Amino acid sequence: MLNPLKPTLLCSALALAQAGSACADTIVAQQFAPLTTVSPELAQFLQLPPVGWDVHPQTAEQWEELVQSSIPLSEQLVDHLCTQYELTVTPETIAGVPCFRITPPHQPQLKQDQVLLYLHCGGYVLNPGKAGLVEALPLAGIGGYTIIAVDYRMAPQHPYPAAIDDAFAVYQELLQTTPASKIGIFGSSSGGAMSLIVPMMCQEKGIAQPGAVMAGTPWSDLGKVGDTYYSHEGVDQTMVSYEGWLKDAVRVYAGDHDLKDPHLSPVYGDYSNFPPLLLIAGTRDLFLSNTVRVQAKMLAAKRPVELIVYEGISHAQYFFFPDVPETKQHYRNVTAFFERYLQ
Amino acid sequence: MLNPLKPTLLCSALALAQAGSACADTIVAQQFAPLTTVSPELAQFLQLPPVGWDVHPQTAEQWEELVQSSIPLSEQLVDHLCTQYELTVTPETIAGVPCFRITPPHQPQLKQDQVLLYLHCGGYVLNPGKAGLVEALPLAGIGGYTIIAVDYRMAPQHPYPAAIDDAFAVYQELLQTTPASKIGIFGSSSGGAMSLIVPMMCQEKGIAQPGAVMAGTPWSDLGKVGDTYYSHEGVDQTMVSYEGWLKDAVRVYAGDHDLKDPHLSPVYGDYSNFPPLLLIAGTRDLFLSNTVRVQAKMLAAKRPVELIVYEGISHAQYFFFPDVPETKQHYRNVTAFFERYLQ
Repeated sequence: MLNPLKPTLLCSALALAQAGSACADTIVAQQFAPLTTVSPELAQFLQLPPVGWDVHPQTAEQWEELVQSSIPLSEQLVDHLCTQYELTVTPETIAGVPCFRITPPHQPQLKQDQVLLYLHCGGYVLNPGKAGLVEALPLAGIGGYTIIAVDYRMAPQHPYPAAIDDAFAVYQELLQTTPASKIGIFGSSSGGAMSLIVPMMCQEKGIAQPGAVMAGTPWSDLGKVGDTYYSHEGVDQTMVSYEGWLKDAVRVYAGDHDLKDPHLSPVYGDYSNFPPLLLIAGTRDLFLSNTVRVQAKMLAAKRPVELIVYEGISHAQYFFFPDVPETKQHYRNVTAFFERYLQ
Repeated sequence: MLNPLKPTLLCSALALAQAGSACADTIVAQQFAPLTTVSPELAQFLQLPPVGWDVHPQTAEQWEELVQSSIPLSEQLVDHLCTQYELTVTPETIAGVPCFRITPPHQPQLKQDQVLLYLHCGGYVLNPGKAGLVEALPLAGIGGYTIIAVDYRMAPQHPYPAAIDDAFAVYQELLQTTPASKIGIFGSSSGGAMSLIVPMMCQEKGIAQPGAVMAGTPWSDLGKVGDTYYSHEGVDQTMVSYEGWLKDAVRVYAGDHDLKDPHLSPVYGDYSNFPPLLLIAGTRDLFLSNTVRVQAKMLAAKRPVELIVYEGISHAQYFFFPDVPETKQHYRNVTAFFERYLQ
C-alpha cells in the first residue's frame, strides 16, 4: 500500500482545490458508511472525502496552475509503478506527436507482436506528460503488453479537435508496423471517449479498425444528458457533479461545437461495425449512464460488448489505488478481454 | 402500448399500499426530470411515482391480502402477453410441484430440444399462480423458447427452504428428459437469486448444472449489505429502500437462518464452477450492488459472465413495460445470450 499518494488527485485532481473559484455550492457530496463489501484497503480509500471537484478556472493561467499542481503526485505514483513492475518508459515521437513507449520486462511471444494504444484521462485539460501514465502502467506490468501512450494536445491552448487528431495520427502510424487486429486501444473518462472515437474515425475514413477497445467510464456525452449525471450527483465521490470543473472543461475543449457531434460525444456515433468493446464503470459512477448508453448502442447493433461495474466505485476510481486487490483484479479483467480479442 | 396496466405493481406490488402499516417515513423517493435518453414511451412510465413499497404486513392475513390484491392486474397483463405472442400456457405438475408450461406458436428445430426453467420474482411472498408469469412470457414469444415456470411455495406459509426445494426438484425432474446443457434457468430479484442457488445445489450434490443462467437484479444478499442498498435508497423508483416491505419479506422467509447462508444469499456461494451467467440491472437499481458483487465473484473465478445495465431503470423495471422498445430489446439480449450458450 502506497500511503503517501492519496489517489483522489488523479483525473479529478486533488490539486484543483487550489485554483479557480468555487460555485456549485448547493451540491453536496453524500457521506456513506465504510463499505464492508470491498477489501479493507479499498474501503479506507473510498472514505476519503471528494476534493477539488468544484473549482472553475477562468483564465489560461488558472488552468495551467491547476494542471501543474496535480503533476508532482501523479509522477510520484508513476515512478512507484515503474519500479514495482520493472517497466521501461521511453519518450518517442510518432506522427509528430509526443508519446511514451511502455515496455514490460517480460513478454510472451504472442504479445511481442501486439501493441496497446493508450489515451489518458483528464477531461481534455489535465495530465500532460508522464502524469498521464498512471492508468496505463499496471496493464503493461500485469498484462504484459507494450503500450504506446499518447501525450496529446489539450485545452484550453489546443481545443477540439487537436486531441483526437493527435490520437488518430498515432494510430494511423502504428498501422505501418502492426496489423490493426493486433492493436488494442484503451483509456478512461475523456480517454475512454477518445477510445470510442478513434474506431469511428477509422470507419469513416475506410481505415482498418483496432482489434479491440476498452473504454472505461467514457465521457460519451459532453452534454449534461443521461440519468446518472442527475441520479448520481453527490453519490459519486470523485467527480461529484457535472456542475464542477467538468462543465468548464467542456467549454474550453468544445467551444461552440455541437456537443452531439460524435467526435465530441461518441454516444451519438455509429456502432454498426464497432470492434469488440469492454466498458467499465462503478456503482457510484457519475458516468454510469455515459457507459451503459454506449452498451445499449452496441447491443442494438449486435456488436460484441462486455460491461464490468465495480462495487462502491466512483468515476474512474478503479485505477486510482493501484495496490489494492480490486485494482489488480481490474487489470486482470482487462488483460483477459484483450487476450480474448487481439489476434 | 397497454395503457391500463400500470406496471409498478409487478414485483413491488402497487397494491401493497392497501395493506400493512407504513413506517419508513424518513426515506423519500427522489423525483427526477423526465429522461431524454430512453424512448418517450418508457420515459412516461418511469415518471410514475413509486407506490406500495413502504408497507409492513404483520400477520398472515395481511400478507395474503397483499398477495391477492396484486393478482388481478398481473393476470390481465399475462392475458395480454399470451394473446400478443400467441402463447399456450398449460398447468403441469412436475416432481409434485405446480408449474406452467409456456409454449410459443413456432420454434426453430434447435429450440424444440431446449427448455428454460423460470423462477418468478416477488420477494418469496408475491406472485403465485399465473400472476408470476409476466416476465417469462415475452421470452417465449420473442425468444421462441419453451418455458417451465415454477409456481413454488412461498412465505409466510412456507418459509425457507420450501421455495428453493421446489425449484430444485423441478430442475432435477427436467433432467430426466432434457440434457443439462440444453436447460437454461432464468429469473429476476428473488427469482434471480434462486437462479443462482439452483446451480450451486447441483454442484454440491454432484448433479449436472444447467447450460446457462440469467439472473436479473438478483436478491443475492438478503442482508442490508452492499453499496447501493444505501447509495440508491430513494433513487430506485420501485423498491425505493430495503426499509420497505423487503425487510419484512426477509423476516418471514428466512426466519432465524443465517442470512449469509449461500442458499439464502447466493453472493456468498462458490462460483468456481458456475455455468455461463448473464446479469441484468439498471442505473437506479437498489440491487445494482447485489448484481455486480456476483459479477465480481464470477470474474475472480474466471467464469464466463455478462452484465447488462439499462439506462434509467430501477429494480426489475426492465420487464415491467412489455410494449416499450427497451423491453423488447431486453428480451432480444436475453435470447442472444441463451443462443450463445445452450447447445
